[in-house]
Amino acid sequence: MTNENAKNEMKTNRIRLGMVGGGQGAFIGAVHRIAARMDDRYQLLAGALASEPQRAVDSAIEIGIDAARAYPDYQKMVDHESNIDDGIEVVSIVTPNHMHFPVARAFVDAGIHVICDKPLATSSKDAAALQSAVKKKGVLFAVTYNYSGYPMVRQAREMVRSGELGRIRVVQVEYPQDWLSTALEETGQKQAAWRTDPVQAGPGGCVGDIGTHAFQLAGFISNLEVKSLSADLYSFVEDRKLDDNVQVMLRFENNARGMLWASQVAPGNENALRIRVYGEKGGLEWSQEDPNYLWFTPLGHPRQLITRAGSGAGEAAAGATRIPAGHPEGYLEGFANIYSDFADAVSAHKSTKKLIESRPYPGLADGISGVKFIEATIKSSRQNGKWIRL
Amino acid sequence: MTNENAKNEMKTNRIRLGMVGGGQGAFIGAVHRIAARMDDRYQLLAGALASEPQRAVDSAIEIGIDAARAYPDYQKMVDHESNIDDGIEVVSIVTPNHMHFPVARAFVDAGIHVICDKPLATSSKDAAALQSAVKKKGVLFAVTYNYSGYPMVRQAREMVRSGELGRIRVVQVEYPQDWLSTALEETGQKQAAWRTDPVQAGPGGCVGDIGTHAFQLAGFISNLEVKSLSADLYSFVEDRKLDDNVQVMLRFENNARGMLWASQVAPGNENALRIRVYGEKGGLEWSQEDPNYLWFTPLGHPRQLITRAGSGAGEAAAGATRIPAGHPEGYLEGFANIYSDFADAVSAHKSTKKLIESRPYPGLADGISGVKFIEATIKSSRQNGKWIRL
Amino acid sequence: MTNENAKNEMKTNRIRLGMVGGGQGAFIGAVHRIAARMDDRYQLLAGALASEPQRAVDSAIEIGIDAARAYPDYQKMVDHESNIDDGIEVVSIVTPNHMHFPVARAFVDAGIHVICDKPLATSSKDAAALQSAVKKKGVLFAVTYNYSGYPMVRQAREMVRSGELGRIRVVQVEYPQDWLSTALEETGQKQAAWRTDPVQAGPGGCVGDIGTHAFQLAGFISNLEVKSLSADLYSFVEDRKLDDNVQVMLRFENNARGMLWASQVAPGNENALRIRVYGEKGGLEWSQEDPNYLWFTPLGHPRQLITRAGSGAGEAAAGATRIPAGHPEGYLEGFANIYSDFADAVSAHKSTKKLIESRPYPGLADGISGVKFIEATIKSSRQNGKWIRL
Amino acid sequence: MTNENAKNEMKTNRIRLGMVGGGQGAFIGAVHRIAARMDDRYQLLAGALASEPQRAVDSAIEIGIDAARAYPDYQKMVDHESNIDDGIEVVSIVTPNHMHFPVARAFVDAGIHVICDKPLATSSKDAAALQSAVKKKGVLFAVTYNYSGYPMVRQAREMVRSGELGRIRVVQVEYPQDWLSTALEETGQKQAAWRTDPVQAGPGGCVGDIGTHAFQLAGFISNLEVKSLSADLYSFVEDRKLDDNVQVMLRFENNARGMLWASQVAPGNENALRIRVYGEKGGLEWSQEDPNYLWFTPLGHPRQLITRAGSGAGEAAAGATRIPAGHPEGYLEGFANIYSDFADAVSAHKSTKKLIESRPYPGLADGISGVKFIEATIKSSRQNGKWIRL
Repeated sequence: MTNENAKNEMKTNRIRLGMVGGGQGAFIGAVHRIAARMDDRYQLLAGALASEPQRAVDSAIEIGIDAARAYPDYQKMVDHESNIDDGIEVVSIVTPNHMHFPVARAFVDAGIHVICDKPLATSSKDAAALQSAVKKKGVLFAVTYNYSGYPMVRQAREMVRSGELGRIRVVQVEYPQDWLSTALEETGQKQAAWRTDPVQAGPGGCVGDIGTHAFQLAGFISNLEVKSLSADLYSFVEDRKLDDNVQVMLRFENNARGMLWASQVAPGNENALRIRVYGEKGGLEWSQEDPNYLWFTPLGHPRQLITRAGSGAGEAAAGATRIPAGHPEGYLEGFANIYSDFADAVSAHKSTKKLIESRPYPGLADGISGVKFIEATIKSSRQNGKWIRL
Repeated sequence: MTNENAKNEMKTNRIRLGMVGGGQGAFIGAVHRIAARMDDRYQLLAGALASEPQRAVDSAIEIGIDAARAYPDYQKMVDHESNIDDGIEVVSIVTPNHMHFPVARAFVDAGIHVICDKPLATSSKDAAALQSAVKKKGVLFAVTYNYSGYPMVRQAREMVRSGELGRIRVVQVEYPQDWLSTALEETGQKQAAWRTDPVQAGPGGCVGDIGTHAFQLAGFISNLEVKSLSADLYSFVEDRKLDDNVQVMLRFENNARGMLWASQVAPGNENALRIRVYGEKGGLEWSQEDPNYLWFTPLGHPRQLITRAGSGAGEAAAGATRIPAGHPEGYLEGFANIYSDFADAVSAHKSTKKLIESRPYPGLADGISGVKFIEATIKSSRQNGKWIRL
Repeated sequence: MTNENAKNEMKTNRIRLGMVGGGQGAFIGAVHRIAARMDDRYQLLAGALASEPQRAVDSAIEIGIDAARAYPDYQKMVDHESNIDDGIEVVSIVTPNHMHFPVARAFVDAGIHVICDKPLATSSKDAAALQSAVKKKGVLFAVTYNYSGYPMVRQAREMVRSGELGRIRVVQVEYPQDWLSTALEETGQKQAAWRTDPVQAGPGGCVGDIGTHAFQLAGFISNLEVKSLSADLYSFVEDRKLDDNVQVMLRFENNARGMLWASQVAPGNENALRIRVYGEKGGLEWSQEDPNYLWFTPLGHPRQLITRAGSGAGEAAAGATRIPAGHPEGYLEGFANIYSDFADAVSAHKSTKKLIESRPYPGLADGISGVKFIEATIKSSRQNGKWIRL
Repeated sequence: MTNENAKNEMKTNRIRLGMVGGGQGAFIGAVHRIAARMDDRYQLLAGALASEPQRAVDSAIEIGIDAARAYPDYQKMVDHESNIDDGIEVVSIVTPNHMHFPVARAFVDAGIHVICDKPLATSSKDAAALQSAVKKKGVLFAVTYNYSGYPMVRQAREMVRSGELGRIRVVQVEYPQDWLSTALEETGQKQAAWRTDPVQAGPGGCVGDIGTHAFQLAGFISNLEVKSLSADLYSFVEDRKLDDNVQVMLRFENNARGMLWASQVAPGNENALRIRVYGEKGGLEWSQEDPNYLWFTPLGHPRQLITRAGSGAGEAAAGATRIPAGHPEGYLEGFANIYSDFADAVSAHKSTKKLIESRPYPGLADGISGVKFIEATIKSSRQNGKWIRL
């Protein structure tokens, strides 16, 4: 083994963390907890882990949270934690979508920094209200568009920003899955149930669940905003209430063009998020399922395979990397990068009292943009693909 | 080496072939000639290989055509060949696009079978006229949508038809290249010059040159017709007169959905034609640059890699295969399959005097459909993506 | 996201952990610490992190270890920790190779369970002495042949054991790297310096550093012991004291045959550990740099790509998996599986007082076997490839 | 489509070709015929296509050879063809191995140039006799180590020769198949029957059939001769008379090291010939099943994917290429390159009367070397892996 470029461990002053959602039967809660532990920057001290009060308490105790801080609901949690000396500094919100807004609002109002799952809210009205509250309270806010935490995504973004691709012309992004090819939601599978239920998921199905990830990634890497879009949403599985296949044409600023496809009914695809960015001088390609590689073609030269921590990777990737080249990092490490970035911001905030909600971790702006994207695709699709400005 | 499933060689009664276009400096002419030779079904006996008379004659003699049948132009060729005892039975038309129609028309009217490059014509009016002429004369007609000649494309088509994928829901097809990322047409490069010139190429640039290939492949494999489309064509290179990037949303019959992307400005792509077809019961993926492989996923099972002549390949592939599994076939073999299929049809026609313009070789219907596709995308794009019925 | 098969978090009763080695400038220490944290089964409470006393203490404090348990050397650590009430239960030894034996011996003698880096020792004499000590004291002992912690390696092992491949005939294993293609050890690079120094690394260079990993993996998956081997070691870089290229022919029990190649001078290879196992009824292929995939071919059928947590993966993989299919896990997660397996064993030992040093975590037997492999390859190579019995 | 670098067609003065072997039920005969036709440099005029006289005649007539030159056996063919005005100039020998020598000898003695399948002969004694005869008669002789005809193999060879890799250190070559995993020879399958029969195949089974290909490729690309080898041959299938798994350690000149593995019992492998070459300054990797790609890593830089006819390919590849980048060529095109190279040599010989049996087509030296390789591996294996000088 060779290089020593790993992210630094900084044990001292671990940040006090709480969690809402993510109890028994959830998937994403455990991911957030591993992400928080990975670099030893947080200690999880409080939680309201489920909507049902007893399950909320039990779930918290089960994973080692002190009974005194295992809350039956988020309201009791915010009340208590904001009134004790060593109350939590950051809360992670990992509930179904419809609870993101009320929970986030409550903790923001209490002056507690927030890490919130995507989508930020189920309407742009709520998203705007949250933005006002955050501004008023001066707290930090991250939205876990976690794919932007992958080292080679950071590398791609840096290459675009440094001009290695020249002016960007085309962005092709897609996120196909196959797990909802049948009516899984009718079998009692929890994840399927809430993600296909408009009450809990909001107005977007596939577009909200994974389309937003693709959309955020396109902007994050290309450094371009989408100005307008034309969408065709469809639901293939009978009686499904929300879309399960999403096709969108995109017009970015500077006349760049793009396409976005997201699907939950494409057999053979697990989480096949993939992005390709083409500029006047070169092209890039990255795939989430093989995240340690970034294909780069300088126009007129052979394709190159840049690897995480390999000789072609730059500072942006190095800053998000723990181990040497050829030893793959994965989804959890990318997720953990969001947590570590946020920990940096929280630490800076503590010492400077200034608010530096800078990239690279995805923040409120990404969250708001994602909500608008969902609304615009639905609107466009209902109007037979009319171009809608974002 | 193991299996013996190769296509049969049938030397006897080689078909008399002529060619129009494909002289010095051309690319596709040599491809057609190799394709015609591959299985020894044709002998090339006559040609008018260039638009400039002397070059036409010289080019023909240079490749071994008898001087008496090296013609200065196609009109002299058709006149003479249709009046000699052993005149050509089939003509290959490999000129720039704008000449496809007049040349094809002339040979059809003389009762000679035609293999014509795509697109069939530069307007649907011309295409319709050709259709009438063909019907009247009762000749055979192939259009070299050559990618449909690949064994694993045939395999994919057969799997869809046999119901292995169930009802088709989504078709994603793309054909990116990078060779026109700069204004190559201004450097004197011949291929770039005529392909970006509306006079020679017709109204479509990228959409006509490669978009039509993608479109034909989608229909060939999915067994579905596109009912309507919404397109966004764009030209990124300054002063380029035709589109060089093509984005289309597709609605197929039976409510299947699709997207098509073709581009000539995507660095890192050579001829990256790729198609993915998803049905209720499974998914398929094929890439032209790795044509001996077909990915197949039966829903709920691991992905399988079916190989040409391998254990998972069926009769459709076997009928288009010459050598054992693991020994790759390529572009020329796929092209040759069109020629061999057509030779079968010509032989059948000779013995039965009946006209069996059946698949699997692409014929007049594909040609007409391709011209309509070009016109529809241009129309939709000019109307800001309005859905246009095909 | 779909399945919920993640490894369980078990916060309660976290195991008290100490570490020897792994201070500033080391690579593998941080890896062990992340691995220990991943599933929240350990708390790191004591350390002697470097050979130089002051650096040892500073390094420990820097990563948050209490100053009272930041020791200047391992001897002081073992003395103190074995005499306090809440002394460490497990020690991780992550020093250069030559210190594995004395440090492990000291902790074993004090009745503390050990997780030790590979190779276990620099001679089979020392390895045997350690074995006796472990037996006498009844402690648990893991050797971090960490690649055996990857879920798809566990899957491969399970498939072989269940008979899906039939009788195993051929095992091909390789581990090429390129980082020592030049005399990096002469530039002051720490990792290169000790790994190419016989005093610190022991008698094997490449063979000890990575060849042993390949060897262990071959046995772990194939369920076969190597009976004899013929080796050709070579050192390509001038003045390098230890081998940097290793070629070995292997004869396994049951007449299976194999080859092993390890190299540190193969440009284009980062950590390209790869294994292929062929039996009468099928074949398997796995690559460390793409660890979420396992290629499986049942003889006479298409190749299948089994994915971690995907539909073709069984219980062995599921037990070593945290997140859904299509979300890649990597090196750290595989490493953490060894730690979690060991935590299970330690917990079982605490409650039952019985010693169940069972697979799947690699233990003393793997460690001893690795040392014998190093010695046998060196002996064979010195005798011009004579077959040496293991 | 872009570049115009295709191999030139040269129709005039097609070379008169005959064939021995390759009749009904054979595989490789059809391959040779397609290869001969591909670039229109030969006309097949005579044949003795089978060992059984009537089948020999029928097979020839069936593929269009004039009845007067459809011979019942090769002796009649050589007698007649060498005594007519327009007798064949070149003969292709595509019989089972044991007939290569007598047939080649007869045609060489008649002053006819020879293209002979590998292995050249079943003993080095015969090979030496053939060498003498060729020298005496001054004819040209090719041995169809056809993999050296692939454009990217030529590219690799050129890169090594130009010094881009620096001094070569390691060569890893392998050729696994799976088609003989069971006792196919007992089912009446012709190919299996003769290839596992010592009388027809000679003393080597897998080693002669595919091991020699791997061996030739290693030398062709690395530009190094093997000085000695240590081999372990094995036969896994019960009652099989010849080896079906071959493991060899190689020592090249200049102290380069290598390994060779060939197998016919490795499920999941079709014709997975693959070579990797590592030098002081860089590494190369090529795989026969994906022949249009060449991986190249300059030490310290990202891996590059050089494509046939792409921007990174040089003159050696261009000279063996027919169509633009991204349109794959395959096995038949590579094979055809040997035929075209040989046609160049024959044409040069006709005009200059001088003998220029130069590379890049594989010739008598490759043939002799291959026979020695077979004998050396068998000898080494019988002596328990003793190193044998070549």
